[in-house]
Amino acid sequence: MAEAITKRATDYSQWYLDIVKHAGMAENSDVRGCMVIKPHGYAIWENMQHALDRMFKDTGHVNAYFPLFIPKSFLEREEEMAAGFAKECAVVTHHRLKAVPGEGLIVDPESKLEEPLIIRPTSETIIWNTYKTWIQSYRDLPLLINQWCNVVRWEMRTRLFLRTAEFLWQEGHTAHATQKEAEEEAHKILEVYRTFAEEWMAMPVLTGPKSDGQKFPGAVYTLCIEAMMQDKKALQAGTSHFLGQNFAKAFDVKFQSQAGQLEYAWATSWGVSTRLVGGLIMTHADDGGLVLPPRLAPIHVVIVPLGKSDEERANSLKAAEGLKETIVKIPREEFFGYEPLVVQIDTRFSQSPGARFIDWEIKGVPIRIELGPRDLAQQTCVMARRDFPGKEGKTIGVPMAGVPTKIVSLLKEIQKNLFERAKKYRDANSFKVNSYDEFKQKIDEPGGFLWAHWDGSRETEDRVSAETKATIRCIPFSCAKEAGKCIVTGKPSEGRVVFAKAY
Amino acid sequence: MAEAITKRATDYSQWYLDIVKHAGMAENSDVRGCMVIKPHGYAIWENMQHALDRMFKDTGHVNAYFPLFIPKSFLEREEEMAAGFAKECAVVTHHRLKAVPGEGLIVDPESKLEEPLIIRPTSETIIWNTYKTWIQSYRDLPLLINQWCNVVRWEMRTRLFLRTAEFLWQEGHTAHATQKEAEEEAHKILEVYRTFAEEWMAMPVLTGPKSDGQKFPGAVYTLCIEAMMQDKKALQAGTSHFLGQNFAKAFDVKFQSQAGQLEYAWATSWGVSTRLVGGLIMTHADDGGLVLPPRLAPIHVVIVPLGKSDEERANSLKAAEGLKETIVKIPREEFFGYEPLVVQIDTRFSQSPGARFIDWEIKGVPIRIELGPRDLAQQTCVMARRDFPGKEGKTIGVPMAGVPTKIVSLLKEIQKNLFERAKKYRDANSFKVNSYDEFKQKIDEPGGFLWAHWDGSRETEDRVSAETKATIRCIPFSCAKEAGKCIVTGKPSEGRVVFAKAY
Repeated sequence: MAEAITKRATDYSQWYLDIVKHAGMAENSDVRGCMVIKPHGYAIWENMQHALDRMFKDTGHVNAYFPLFIPKSFLEREEEMAAGFAKECAVVTHHRLKAVPGEGLIVDPESKLEEPLIIRPTSETIIWNTYKTWIQSYRDLPLLINQWCNVVRWEMRTRLFLRTAEFLWQEGHTAHATQKEAEEEAHKILEVYRTFAEEWMAMPVLTGPKSDGQKFPGAVYTLCIEAMMQDKKALQAGTSHFLGQNFAKAFDVKFQSQAGQLEYAWATSWGVSTRLVGGLIMTHADDGGLVLPPRLAPIHVVIVPLGKSDEERANSLKAAEGLKETIVKIPREEFFGYEPLVVQIDTRFSQSPGARFIDWEIKGVPIRIELGPRDLAQQTCVMARRDFPGKEGKTIGVPMAGVPTKIVSLLKEIQKNLFERAKKYRDANSFKVNSYDEFKQKIDEPGGFLWAHWDGSRETEDRVSAETKATIRCIPFSCAKEAGKCIVTGKPSEGRVVFAKAY
Repeated sequence: MAEAITKRATDYSQWYLDIVKHAGMAENSDVRGCMVIKPHGYAIWENMQHALDRMFKDTGHVNAYFPLFIPKSFLEREEEMAAGFAKECAVVTHHRLKAVPGEGLIVDPESKLEEPLIIRPTSETIIWNTYKTWIQSYRDLPLLINQWCNVVRWEMRTRLFLRTAEFLWQEGHTAHATQKEAEEEAHKILEVYRTFAEEWMAMPVLTGPKSDGQKFPGAVYTLCIEAMMQDKKALQAGTSHFLGQNFAKAFDVKFQSQAGQLEYAWATSWGVSTRLVGGLIMTHADDGGLVLPPRLAPIHVVIVPLGKSDEERANSLKAAEGLKETIVKIPREEFFGYEPLVVQIDTRFSQSPGARFIDWEIKGVPIRIELGPRDLAQQTCVMARRDFPGKEGKTIGVPMAGVPTKIVSLLKEIQKNLFERAKKYRDANSFKVNSYDEFKQKIDEPGGFLWAHWDGSRETEDRVSAETKATIRCIPFSCAKEAGKCIVTGKPSEGRVVFAKAY
């Protein structure tokens, strides 16, 4: 607790790691590239899961579970996918250890598998291999299935939450009778992701397709939500892929159409992962610690009773408990269906008030209530909102009777303020650039999202990426059609795309 | 749908597989020993997760997530665990595939890992390796952590849900300052499991320690809940282990006690898995299909509107929708906090009423409402309870206005009836036996739980197991102390233990 958090301005990367550490969110494990998600970080992920799962179900999806292991031959069937994931696979080759005197346990050579198994990096192949038996007729369609699970991609350079060898995610895999329906599904899910990012995470996102250079291996096209972090770099926060008939063809999934013809099924897949927790941190946290949007906070309100003597402490603790009772009774209509709001009472009287306040600030709890003898004497309390650190966020003399009402309005206000502040930041760091020189000048300093004309070719995209390390993050739906010339080649362009450096 | 379910009396194993298949719960995948959990099966698992997760949190536990991979050397540190799991490990040895012309993808020999990684069969080792850095002082204790995840044990003979190479589970791992506290934790969790089994699953269980021959590798002792299936075999449904200081010693986890001494921490671990779904089936399902206790049913009520003409169908569909509205408004106080109750309307008018009814019976939905023109004319409906199949469970002429009240009482009644019926079945198939001859006579026919005196030795236990294939399932808390003589050796015994054949 005593160690300070590095300031963003001093060392952004270290600041991020400090937040993750001091807020108790995650840490590196002794297994290369794999993280331990600690209780506070996991509680945020659980809240994300609950919200998303509800939205998936409300749009007609059901959950299921498919094997962790993918036979090597399955991966080979879809060429782009094989090329895209082969280099970062955890490969299971044996199924037994044996004890050898003097050597301990060794991999038993006699347990070698006939066919190596890959730990799923994503599950299109095993799922479409299964769908083959589930889909016979148009009556079996659509299949709208989601899976919550772990996946492994053997990344060489990892960063807690943002890029880890093992991560947790959901992957939706749907099958449809028509191209139109599958494309509508891909867009519908993108809208679920946008809504979740903006209304729960308070993280503004651009939406639109990826360029071909950035699409998912095996997809016809990839739609994405793309956010700006506080170092002005882009974070791909969720993707929804239209897979065409690629996987149906690779796994021979045909169905009898209403017209009686045998046709290949149409597919989508889509996912978001624990990476979102990293995005949440990098969108809202400040130099004092984590800042959580109320709709995803594991604790909404912390009450810190204060006092020096035993009697003072007993009195303020009793008042805290009374206050908690009134807050947990706030009916669910008041704040987005949450009931009860989660209230924690901090009973660590042996620590200094300052240390206790700082601890809750680091953890990002939206509202802190302080209750000391002087407050009690006046039947008031002190209320601090986390989105404005220090004195700026503190209100003294809040009447105890008005606390529930005040809590509700403050939670809503914080949720709204975080979104608006992040949007303002992103907009202030987005620029239209009209020449490649200007692009190269701006991409490092000031950085941010550069909206530029591009000729649509993979060649140009690759050149920009090689020369500047910036990539096309999104071809935003929100971009007005605007005729122009590619900043690199001068060839015609129909609208601006967004370039940025990215995680 | 047309394929019949094998009757229990004809072939119990095939009956089980038929239920799993026809109710859409799971199927074998193309990966040896791994199952695909289908939507209906997964929805039941989700309901189990929600109920258990709530109970864990209400008893002070939090969730976290630890790596899938366990370095081989970690497993070696705790001897019993190494011996217990080494023979059934999926081993990751490489981290890359490479494309070789003519051969497709091969395991890249240059990507061999320095140390092989085991897919977790259980996570004590990786977690206690992590706890080492989390636990310094008694102030850091207790740690009350649970994890929901997948694990892999390379089983050679698998059976859907009951024994699969990969399965889903929760594993709790707690650390305590004193032996007493750790033992209390192990017992507290056993009580959570008993409550869940009996009050949610409606599955009566015996509770008590396992014999040494049946305890978890690395545990000082293992507590269990043990249930009887309809073939009279036992199913170990959940275990809670007191681990003593074994893992603290293996991973050198010491803390400074309140008295200022360095001491090893005390541990428990405990888990239940997707095996419970198999137990649920084998406890309640009948020859007509699945039978679900209402508290775990993904759908509480299905309404089947009937009619021949378009007009009739439109009318009964409209009435069904009206009825659904009234049922989903039943307030949460009425049925164990469920709000809204899940109601599905079956609109498959093109299929015969009989086929539609049978489909919902197979899926185990607790209450089915049938609504046809004749019912509508009298403002009534037909209500069928799943725990009594066919006509026995049907009530004709239920007034529409009284449906919500009737639903609530019926759901409660079904929940209660399923438990009582299963308990009666278990008790009717439990016998006290007083000689080894009698034991050997009864263990196969009639089978069931044999309560017998045992001298407490591993030797006797192993002998009985070798000679009869029955094992000691539980040393039940519920058994009155009763002096007697071991049925095998004649040595003194303090009470009866329960022997049975088991899954």
